[in-house]
Amino acid sequence: MTILTTYKRAYDGTKLDPYPVESLKRVDRPTTFIDEERIQRVDQRAGGFARARSGGLGPSYQNLLGLFKYPLSRAQQRMAATLADKVDGPVAEHRAPGTDDPEAMARHIKATAYFLRADVVGICRLPPYAVYSHSQATGEPIECAHKYAIAVLVDQDWKTADASFGNDWISTSMGFLSYSTTAFISCILADYIRKLGYPARAHHIRNYQVMLPPILLWAGLGEMCRTGDIVLNPFLGTRFKAAVVTTDLPLAIDRPIDFGLQDFCSKCAKCATHCPAGAIPFGEDSTVVHNGYVKWNNDVDRCLKYRIGNQWGSGCGVCIHVCPWNKPFTPFHRFVRWTMTNIPLARRLAIWGDDLMGYGTPNQKNKWWHDLEAVDGVLQTPDRSGKRFVNSPTDRASD
Amino acid sequence: MTILTTYKRAYDGTKLDPYPVESLKRVDRPTTFIDEERIQRVDQRAGGFARARSGGLGPSYQNLLGLFKYPLSRAQQRMAATLADKVDGPVAEHRAPGTDDPEAMARHIKATAYFLRADVVGICRLPPYAVYSHSQATGEPIECAHKYAIAVLVDQDWKTADASFGNDWISTSMGFLSYSTTAFISCILADYIRKLGYPARAHHIRNYQVMLPPILLWAGLGEMCRTGDIVLNPFLGTRFKAAVVTTDLPLAIDRPIDFGLQDFCSKCAKCATHCPAGAIPFGEDSTVVHNGYVKWNNDVDRCLKYRIGNQWGSGCGVCIHVCPWNKPFTPFHRFVRWTMTNIPLARRLAIWGDDLMGYGTPNQKNKWWHDLEAVDGVLQTPDRSGKRFVNSPTDRASD
Repeated sequence: MTILTTYKRAYDGTKLDPYPVESLKRVDRPTTFIDEERIQRVDQRAGGFARARSGGLGPSYQNLLGLFKYPLSRAQQRMAATLADKVDGPVAEHRAPGTDDPEAMARHIKATAYFLRADVVGICRLPPYAVYSHSQATGEPIECAHKYAIAVLVDQDWKTADASFGNDWISTSMGFLSYSTTAFISCILADYIRKLGYPARAHHIRNYQVMLPPILLWAGLGEMCRTGDIVLNPFLGTRFKAAVVTTDLPLAIDRPIDFGLQDFCSKCAKCATHCPAGAIPFGEDSTVVHNGYVKWNNDVDRCLKYRIGNQWGSGCGVCIHVCPWNKPFTPFHRFVRWTMTNIPLARRLAIWGDDLMGYGTPNQKNKWWHDLEAVDGVLQTPDRSGKRFVNSPTDRASD
Repeated sequence: MTILTTYKRAYDGTKLDPYPVESLKRVDRPTTFIDEERIQRVDQRAGGFARARSGGLGPSYQNLLGLFKYPLSRAQQRMAATLADKVDGPVAEHRAPGTDDPEAMARHIKATAYFLRADVVGICRLPPYAVYSHSQATGEPIECAHKYAIAVLVDQDWKTADASFGNDWISTSMGFLSYSTTAFISCILADYIRKLGYPARAHHIRNYQVMLPPILLWAGLGEMCRTGDIVLNPFLGTRFKAAVVTTDLPLAIDRPIDFGLQDFCSKCAKCATHCPAGAIPFGEDSTVVHNGYVKWNNDVDRCLKYRIGNQWGSGCGVCIHVCPWNKPFTPFHRFVRWTMTNIPLARRLAIWGDDLMGYGTPNQKNKWWHDLEAVDGVLQTPDRSGKRFVNSPTDRASD
């Protein structure tokens, strides 16, 4: 990655991607092992929020309204719901000329997604094991045999991340900024591809047939990180959400990336230290094999319960906020990112410097939202707004 | 306007607006006269595309599909149509605490719109004459008595503008990028305000009750320009579209701006020179009074007919592209913009330099889209893609 790239890139038509993705080290396989022979397709009804809703986490976590106590997140959620049935539609009878060149089409589809204001885009073959086995809504088997997956990422907004604890009232809105915006982009993109004469379906927060992590890994959009189930992007950290378009349009694929994150996460445990749920493991090598994926051994149920029941705000994204990769795209931070990626010895220094500079501590003077909490349908000013928790490996061991 | 502001502004939480709007000169009234006593509210059925559809421009302009010959624009248009009935909804019974401070609410609502990825936002009192008198769809009288209007602008994308003729295949898609995105943002914003306990309605390309130009003028988002019916923003030129949220939420209002555009347009006629329809007037002071507004005397019907019937592409936005204010937000162009705003003598120099540097000539090497034309529902590769026309004041006089 060149550290001299300037922000003029955003105005330079010769650069396909807003971020310098071409400078990332590409590898043949994701940096965490995926045992493709053994992976079982996942039933949507086994997903976290589905289990919560059906009572699997206990009666006090069945009502997910706690995630939407802040009114903006409800408006965003309603918008995403509006797009639930806009994911698919009729395919043009004739294929458009020029659409049989996979290299050209991959470039064109990425450029189209960027035109529609996506922040990062990647393409991979759709792994069959990324398709859910059964629908949460109907219980019916899911079939999605498209060849390719286009993943569209949208930033959750640096300015807001900078001002927020991560577990205060704006948390769900940050996630839904990216969920609703990627829903919007992916539905238009899928419709466009169908008009080119190829089947295409959008998969967004309100209507998924595929699970995102393996797609993000194979499309070169990040590596697995200590938080367990989340892919970390080298430019956005985990401060993003994604939607996907699956299609049969011939597309050149991207390759997975290696920016040294496995070593980095083994040395850094800021997310584990500050997770208010104590759901993220400490330790240099706290990985497990889960359904064929090597991943850090996070406690999904603790995470879910905290997000649904959080009394300090609405939802939670503390791990996103305290992560040293959650930075703006300024020359200084690009220099630090370059050293973190390329110089293993610099990683401990970067983690130490991150603490020293106070990153992860919210700049509450930049807070732009007004704390509000829906209590029995009436908005009130809550007397609390986010809190930083500090765990130590010892606490965690004694749980 | 400080010319030293850096792009770090985008990452600086203390700055409310992404562009340095606080440095604009504010004035009491728009820089072009508006005779508020005499303005008649406009019937939507008298609007350009409504007249075209009903045969007022002749039978060959009744079918507006020419605007959507490029498949991406149809997908974007479909998305905007999806949001047609999402503009209004129930208002929360109780007002949220803290919402009775107009200054704080104006700041908060703008910050919320920027969080939702608007590019420029402004607020004014809703002028009663900005409300249409009758609906195009139903012919019913329109009533919208909200006190305030929040205008939300989205850029049509500099990279694409840089590569396009303005009358090639991507033209309508550029407009609909901003139309669909502002529709998305305005619907969420209005829903949020209703959840705060105040009536609010979004007005976007697929469901307007208000006309935008007077709102944009009073909200300090631009001045009228030579093209006639369009407001020009000092940071985006005319390379934007807007949506509006009208509401009774108490809001501090912005004031109109004066960045010297009336003098600038009187010296520059690049849009008139290159308008493929010959619809934009030459001359230093080709203004008329139209329904109480002083405006440049453009020929709306010629403009509409060209856009609907354009054989070189789909739709048209040549005037947007050739305008010297259509520039990226780089330090160099911000310096030139500063001189154009503040030093009247520099304006002729800037116009001369703009031609000299070849601005307005598309950088076709940066073109990312694939030319496609829907002919009887089948996509074909057209043998033409945009064309630069050159008019002279003499041609125009001889029409």
